[in-house]
Amino acid sequence: MRFQLAILLLISFNANAQAEDGYDLWLRYQPISDQALLRDYRDAVSAVLVEGQSATLSAAREELRMALGGLLGRDVPLVEVVEAAVKDRLLVAGTSAPGGLIASLNLANDLKAVGEEGFLIRSMKIGGKRRVVIAANKDIGVLHGVFQFLRLLQTHQPIGSLSIVTAPRIRHRVLDHWDNLDGTVERGYAGFSLWDWHKLPDYLPPRYKDYARANASIGINGTVLTNVNANAVSLTPEYLKKAAALAEVFRPYGIRVYLTARFSAPIEIGNLKTADPLDPGVAAWWKEKADEIYRYIPDFGGFLVKANSEGQPGPQQYGRSHADGANLLADALSPHGGIVMWRAFVYDDKVPDDRAKQAYNEFKPLDGSFRPNVLVQVKNGPIDFQPREPFHPLFGAMPATPLMMEFQITQEYLGFATHLVYLAPLFKETLDSDTFAKGPGSRVARVIDGSLHGHQLTAIAGVANTGSDRNWCGSVFAQSNWYAFGRLAWDHTLSAEAIAGEWIRMTFSNDPLLVEKVSSIMMASREVAVDYMTPLGLHHLMARDHHYGPGPWVSGGPRADWTSVYYHRADSNAVGFDRSASGSNAVGQYFPPVAQLFGSLEKCPEKYLLWFHHVKWDHRMQSGRTLWEELCRGYQRGVSAVRAMQASWRSLRGRVDAERYEQIDAFLRIQESEARWWRDACILYFQTFSKKDIPKEVDPPSETLDYFRSVVKRYVPGTARPIR
Amino acid sequence: MRFQLAILLLISFNANAQAEDGYDLWLRYQPISDQALLRDYRDAVSAVLVEGQSATLSAAREELRMALGGLLGRDVPLVEVVEAAVKDRLLVAGTSAPGGLIASLNLANDLKAVGEEGFLIRSMKIGGKRRVVIAANKDIGVLHGVFQFLRLLQTHQPIGSLSIVTAPRIRHRVLDHWDNLDGTVERGYAGFSLWDWHKLPDYLPPRYKDYARANASIGINGTVLTNVNANAVSLTPEYLKKAAALAEVFRPYGIRVYLTARFSAPIEIGNLKTADPLDPGVAAWWKEKADEIYRYIPDFGGFLVKANSEGQPGPQQYGRSHADGANLLADALSPHGGIVMWRAFVYDDKVPDDRAKQAYNEFKPLDGSFRPNVLVQVKNGPIDFQPREPFHPLFGAMPATPLMMEFQITQEYLGFATHLVYLAPLFKETLDSDTFAKGPGSRVARVIDGSLHGHQLTAIAGVANTGSDRNWCGSVFAQSNWYAFGRLAWDHTLSAEAIAGEWIRMTFSNDPLLVEKVSSIMMASREVAVDYMTPLGLHHLMARDHHYGPGPWVSGGPRADWTSVYYHRADSNAVGFDRSASGSNAVGQYFPPVAQLFGSLEKCPEKYLLWFHHVKWDHRMQSGRTLWEELCRGYQRGVSAVRAMQASWRSLRGRVDAERYEQIDAFLRIQESEARWWRDACILYFQTFSKKDIPKEVDPPSETLDYFRSVVKRYVPGTARPIR
Repeated sequence: MRFQLAILLLISFNANAQAEDGYDLWLRYQPISDQALLRDYRDAVSAVLVEGQSATLSAAREELRMALGGLLGRDVPLVEVVEAAVKDRLLVAGTSAPGGLIASLNLANDLKAVGEEGFLIRSMKIGGKRRVVIAANKDIGVLHGVFQFLRLLQTHQPIGSLSIVTAPRIRHRVLDHWDNLDGTVERGYAGFSLWDWHKLPDYLPPRYKDYARANASIGINGTVLTNVNANAVSLTPEYLKKAAALAEVFRPYGIRVYLTARFSAPIEIGNLKTADPLDPGVAAWWKEKADEIYRYIPDFGGFLVKANSEGQPGPQQYGRSHADGANLLADALSPHGGIVMWRAFVYDDKVPDDRAKQAYNEFKPLDGSFRPNVLVQVKNGPIDFQPREPFHPLFGAMPATPLMMEFQITQEYLGFATHLVYLAPLFKETLDSDTFAKGPGSRVARVIDGSLHGHQLTAIAGVANTGSDRNWCGSVFAQSNWYAFGRLAWDHTLSAEAIAGEWIRMTFSNDPLLVEKVSSIMMASREVAVDYMTPLGLHHLMARDHHYGPGPWVSGGPRADWTSVYYHRADSNAVGFDRSASGSNAVGQYFPPVAQLFGSLEKCPEKYLLWFHHVKWDHRMQSGRTLWEELCRGYQRGVSAVRAMQASWRSLRGRVDAERYEQIDAFLRIQESEARWWRDACILYFQTFSKKDIPKEVDPPSETLDYFRSVVKRYVPGTARPIR
Repeated sequence: MRFQLAILLLISFNANAQAEDGYDLWLRYQPISDQALLRDYRDAVSAVLVEGQSATLSAAREELRMALGGLLGRDVPLVEVVEAAVKDRLLVAGTSAPGGLIASLNLANDLKAVGEEGFLIRSMKIGGKRRVVIAANKDIGVLHGVFQFLRLLQTHQPIGSLSIVTAPRIRHRVLDHWDNLDGTVERGYAGFSLWDWHKLPDYLPPRYKDYARANASIGINGTVLTNVNANAVSLTPEYLKKAAALAEVFRPYGIRVYLTARFSAPIEIGNLKTADPLDPGVAAWWKEKADEIYRYIPDFGGFLVKANSEGQPGPQQYGRSHADGANLLADALSPHGGIVMWRAFVYDDKVPDDRAKQAYNEFKPLDGSFRPNVLVQVKNGPIDFQPREPFHPLFGAMPATPLMMEFQITQEYLGFATHLVYLAPLFKETLDSDTFAKGPGSRVARVIDGSLHGHQLTAIAGVANTGSDRNWCGSVFAQSNWYAFGRLAWDHTLSAEAIAGEWIRMTFSNDPLLVEKVSSIMMASREVAVDYMTPLGLHHLMARDHHYGPGPWVSGGPRADWTSVYYHRADSNAVGFDRSASGSNAVGQYFPPVAQLFGSLEKCPEKYLLWFHHVKWDHRMQSGRTLWEELCRGYQRGVSAVRAMQASWRSLRGRVDAERYEQIDAFLRIQESEARWWRDACILYFQTFSKKDIPKEVDPPSETLDYFRSVVKRYVPGTARPIR
């Protein structure tokens, strides 16, 4: 009777524990549901030893305690070294620091391969006693290994004969937060800034630690706290104190803090008259500023800089080059080991050349003229994070300069927080693109991991999709993109599907039907979004400024390269941007095999067709249908696919907790409605050029073109605003 | 062994259940810790019957299920009427709707006293069967009664012989959210807006329902969704749909939705050329607009209006009166039963009279000229929510017009979200103030509950302190002010201490030492804040614009009545605003006994001294010390009191869950630091006038006056900004 009561209470508390709001991200430590696996896991891990007392190792110990308690449904005893030696079925984690159990295992040779942040995990039998060993050269490697080990349990992997050896392929794996000091987030759809500047440095909510845990679990080791549209105030002592408090929370988790550097800071907060990079006073100011920053934050990572782009100040207003500007900051940072990530996102509407060509034209000539601690940060494609872009021509074109990747995790052009779009396929598409810079196999991934041109300094950045929303990212599926970015930053050879599988199992459950269905939904979703927004190589068709919803008619305004007509160039005969040799010859910036492929109307992959060619509405596509028909069918296919996603999701009712199920269901309804909005607005608009009937396979539009053109959306989250 | 395992698991889940982040507010349903009480409660409530299937009664049923499950540590069976008749020790809740158990209890007479929203709770024995009966005339009364009953359990009250009969004393009990459509909250320190307009109406997170539950639990029945600095866009169909979705969530909880009406809306969204209230086209526009609103929201509450105040448009720009403006809107709403709450918060720096007099001068002549569905909304005092103000002279001065109270719950002038300041003493001070409008006993509370002048239409508003922060209010103790406002709105005769006791027991625990210490902290805290900010009747000394920190030197700028010098008038002889007959004669706006008391230098209560008098630094106070000494000691007393609060709080370590304990501890550190900032800045500044030494009992200032004057705070939360 007491037992029954206890079980009843247990179940009722279990039920309460099941209420999920997404806060735990993929670090959910729900009891293992598979009874056989649970037995195996409990069997293998009957005690835990984490060797060492540093903050990082304490974090590792705490994570194991919490996670194993949840996963195994019982507290697993933490032991000290002295007890450990006699324990069978022990999980032991640590470095080869002398005196420990790990040190006695002679792993030094094996550990050579794992570098500063990597680890090995091995099932061993020592003197008849079974051990699962997590070993690393540094404490942070141990923490990474612990998260990997827990991932195995969360994803129901066998742990009987483990032999994992891994090190990150890219050195600096960074989140870029476009957060403003007033709490707003540019292109942020997850509430407002995570950083409560007003209460920093005095109050450090648990959320900062959980942010660090989430990042450490996927190996992210850097965070840029401030918007690339920078505010010099963030470099003043008042704010450096606040940043230092954050750095202190993050440090044990292996995460370094970076800040964006406003190029005109010497004037704005230094009261200098100039910010000329070649002015000795300016150089001295930055040197002192760097020294000051490192007094507050001894392991400060460095600066991220947007200069001479979209109105941001930079070296060019003094007749200096990007290299001059980058080197100015690099020299200030280098005594302290800091780096400069200098963005190549430049385009000037007064330069009469195709926007897609300008960054290459501006940066390639500077190849080799940057200091050793500078990386040039290049977006995945040459325009701006469109649903699909060909890879940026700079990749492979600057062999003497470390180039780093900038991906966008926040869905500025991919539906904000409500559209389910799994981005790993987009990331992989770029990473696996062959630049042919040094013959076949010169993949973009090898440019950024340094292996193609022999660079040690390597980095990858993701524009973060995190904010103050309870579920961090605005939606549950948006979390998968943060996760995937981290996993690919660590190892770009992982497949999008494998990463999705991990994430689904960790975030939802290991229910095979759920895993299969959700994986299908996710793996198709990027192409689905391309279909209902910008099929066949179309790009930059969104509404002006806030980027919410379609605006293929956007024209006029302050800059032609901020319109839609600039990019689609639709006329009564054709649509698309001729970037071939007969047009802007943007293709000429690629290496010959690529240039030839993209530049040929016949051979260009249809997914890039309208990116590189101005194509007649009548043009026969591979399917035999005309371009116009294929375009319309693309839009319709996207809408239909979202409906299929909805149906698939609904079949999972009951297999997902109610709160997250309902939110995802509501968001899919929004996505379907907005997919139709995109489809209808774009088809009607392009029809004014093609003058052709809408194919019967396509649902008739719900409204007129005039209606769609009249839609005004106000107060759209994430809209960029001038610094105040 | 299995039992021990089960208990262990139980404890570990219990431990997890103890992690508290403040989200549950005072609606925590933790297991009753007192074993004897637990037995009594379980004994008294062995089954529950809620009669009826309406949304409101379903909400009541759900609340009981969740709460009793948590409090009693076990699920209490919900029964149907047919089983109920034979059940002993039944909790039954319902109205006298025919066919139910309640109907059979002949409570109709008793229920006459409880009106539309009230309830009775009675322990009864019927045919040998014990019943706890919660009965009401309407479903919403039942819900209110259920929350009251649960409060008894949460606060460990005996429930053996209950006889509660209660109805709210004020009809409309409203939260005013100064939320903007872009998500910012004016004078909000709890994150950003609760309303995710971008995802409304499609997505309704659980938070909206929990907001409704929290309000229903304290009897709040109205919510104004938008800022008094209004935005006409909120009245457009796109936003009415969103508001309607919120109204639908709130409706079962008895909460009606209101909106702020921008007076120039006919021009801004109606494309009219004028907003003149006497223009027939304008009247027609508002009538149609009201009709439209009620199509979306059939039980829309009405409009809250700020007009001709701080730049907001209004009737006066057309040479019309506040009554003309209010009546325009009132006529549009009255066919639908809506009301207008027209704010009396007016002051014009071009009017050469004491700001404290202007609202009275502008509104008293209009007494009796408002439509029956208009209330004039009056702030508690004649300036603007200062830490202490005498009651507003309009109270009692407009017998022919329903006046309503506007309190400020958000701590715009009382330390934002980090200072622990319990406001019920401030609310009570105003409510209990005797206006002498009809002789002694003409308390402000009787003005606003309609009993003094015989008004049926009554209301009270609180400027909300809620936002998107996980704990709703920015800090745990700020929650107590939302709670207290609701309790006083229902019954202004409750004492501040009794309300604090309820709140502490519900929010923390019934641990007697904790209750006593926290109650002491809370009850003293308002006076503590007055002491370290604005003792002895000083007011409006805060920093310009953002109001963060002290700024007694604030002078110049666009308006004299936005400076500090305007209010303290410090000179080499004296300090304070002469509002006596020899000065602005603001005292003359009060009824004679009050005017005489305030107007006499000798008799004026010292807490109001510098509000009403310009007093020599040498003036002998009741203590025998000079004004200067008393002023300095006041500031020091405040700082010392905060330190005592810190020590008292720290003595409670272990009696409060870690997360909330640490947050409160961190905030008390901030409060102590800011209290010193106020003290030092103000004493140093006033010393430049008094030219006297700082008494030795006062800590020497930490910095110079020049330092304090040079402090610039940026990006302060809640700062008012123009509509964009």
